[in-house]
Amino acid sequence: MSRCQEAAICTDDLTLGYIRAAAARLAGVAHRTPLLTSATLNSRCEGVVLLKAESFQRGGSFKFRGAFNRMSQLDPAQRAAGVVAYSSGNHGGAVALAARLLGIAAVVVVPATGSAAKLAAIESYGAELRRYDPVTERREEVAAAIASDRSLTVIRPFDDYGVMAGQGTVGLELAEDARGLDQVLVPVGGGGLIAGVATAVKGLQPQARVIGVEPAAGGDTAASFRAGYRVDIGEPSTIADGLRASQPGELTFPINARLLDDVVTVPDEAIIEAMRFCFSFLKIVVEPSGAVALAALLAGVVPGRGKTGVVLSGGNIAPADFAGLLGAR
Amino acid sequence: MSRCQEAAICTDDLTLGYIRAAAARLAGVAHRTPLLTSATLNSRCEGVVLLKAESFQRGGSFKFRGAFNRMSQLDPAQRAAGVVAYSSGNHGGAVALAARLLGIAAVVVVPATGSAAKLAAIESYGAELRRYDPVTERREEVAAAIASDRSLTVIRPFDDYGVMAGQGTVGLELAEDARGLDQVLVPVGGGGLIAGVATAVKGLQPQARVIGVEPAAGGDTAASFRAGYRVDIGEPSTIADGLRASQPGELTFPINARLLDDVVTVPDEAIIEAMRFCFSFLKIVVEPSGAVALAALLAGVVPGRGKTGVVLSGGNIAPADFAGLLGAR
Repeated sequence: MSRCQEAAICTDDLTLGYIRAAAARLAGVAHRTPLLTSATLNSRCEGVVLLKAESFQRGGSFKFRGAFNRMSQLDPAQRAAGVVAYSSGNHGGAVALAARLLGIAAVVVVPATGSAAKLAAIESYGAELRRYDPVTERREEVAAAIASDRSLTVIRPFDDYGVMAGQGTVGLELAEDARGLDQVLVPVGGGGLIAGVATAVKGLQPQARVIGVEPAAGGDTAASFRAGYRVDIGEPSTIADGLRASQPGELTFPINARLLDDVVTVPDEAIIEAMRFCFSFLKIVVEPSGAVALAALLAGVVPGRGKTGVVLSGGNIAPADFAGLLGAR
Repeated sequence: MSRCQEAAICTDDLTLGYIRAAAARLAGVAHRTPLLTSATLNSRCEGVVLLKAESFQRGGSFKFRGAFNRMSQLDPAQRAAGVVAYSSGNHGGAVALAARLLGIAAVVVVPATGSAAKLAAIESYGAELRRYDPVTERREEVAAAIASDRSLTVIRPFDDYGVMAGQGTVGLELAEDARGLDQVLVPVGGGGLIAGVATAVKGLQPQARVIGVEPAAGGDTAASFRAGYRVDIGEPSTIADGLRASQPGELTFPINARLLDDVVTVPDEAIIEAMRFCFSFLKIVVEPSGAVALAALLAGVVPGRGKTGVVLSGGNIAPADFAGLLGAR
């Protein structure tokens, strides 16, 4: 038994047991999000589609699960010192929210050019913002310097087993609430969400295929999956701002290379169509990054036969940005 | 015992018993919609707020409940002949959907100037559209003529006890799922929804105040409630297109005059703010008419102390219209 299993704290691997331990930590703190269905969606996809709506998670995305699970395992000295994260989006908000709930001080390193609404959301949770210039500085280095200066723990967005175990509770709930899944479609950025979901789903329902979905411009995991090693595609240009990783994570990729059945990509237009579908037929708000998996199904990139689980990973988008994407017709 | 009670079909009054009978007819057909909560909303309103999300109902609004309950009580000859309804909005869609489910032919009388998206939605359920010119024709008369010519049953949007009993199941579910309600806020158009909700809520939780909310320009029930008789205010101009009744219903008003504790109004700007709140904090789509009750709470027109139930009555709005209302900032 590894040190990890003994402590049920995940520091050297990702297992179903660690995900179960994360679920226990998150019980009563994170929302157990609903599985939504739509008769229109089922008839369009010729099967049963179950949408795991992480847009309804605290903080508006799945990111809260990983951040809280990771941060609740800090020791007393680490808690007293505080944490630092780099993100202008959902991870930053999630770390800020988890920090407030746990009584931990948090610094979030954000681009000076970031959306005012998103930065205000992070600040509203009580986190300290540290702005950096994305042209002259690298956010990982800014965060590392702050961490070193102030003895803070860096909470990485995906390349961390504690974070991945938290995200895996999405898959745990999906597999517990939906029996007999034929396939599960999951958005892929750095790969932390799908690594956790695949570990949980394959652990509970080995017959279910787990398929990653990326925006066409940000297909670093798709390319890496085919190549068999981590390909760097440079900074992608896509409306899916949470999926702009230039290469898969060092820790996430080996897990995904082993567990995933496929990784596909969808054009931005298909993402907008999926957001529009959610708006018109489900009456829910899904951000571009959150809609890629559904986009793959609606666009027919992945055929929808049998019982399909789809992760809608988040719903954080400013009304004006949403209007700009969907308002055209 | 009246004829109504005996048959559990409501033709001469509205009672908790008729609403329970409606609930039995709707079981497994209508969705039991969720009660949503938001920590941000609770803290802003200094109390507990439970949102009854009828935006997630079949057809996108509470209207399906009343239409299906009414139409499922037609006798075989009436079913064989079919129904006619007048509405360009949610009632038309609800009658069309219920007709499809019950295998009944439906004609929906719609303004020739109506939104293409809404008319397409009604047609997509298989209903026959009959366009009228709102300048030269009155829709009630057009519908009555068709009903007479073709022996169809007119399904009224609110002034019908069977319709009201169906809408009352919103209140039944709310009162069953939320104990100890201090107040319930409900949108008011013709008054059918609130008549049903008030009958159910007062029947199960007599201590709960039931308060109607109208758009400021469409305050016909508020004015009538104060006057003690049905006031006609003419066609109101408001973004809440489902609440443009010019006067309360002949059958709904006596019920509401007896049961309601108050009727208040909110300006259109407050309705937009409530829609924006739902978008940003709840990640759900609510149409203007569906957001008036929440608007009253957020704008402080009704103070939010204790436990407040709020009916979000529908979510049908075209993306472009939504963008036009919320996209400005």
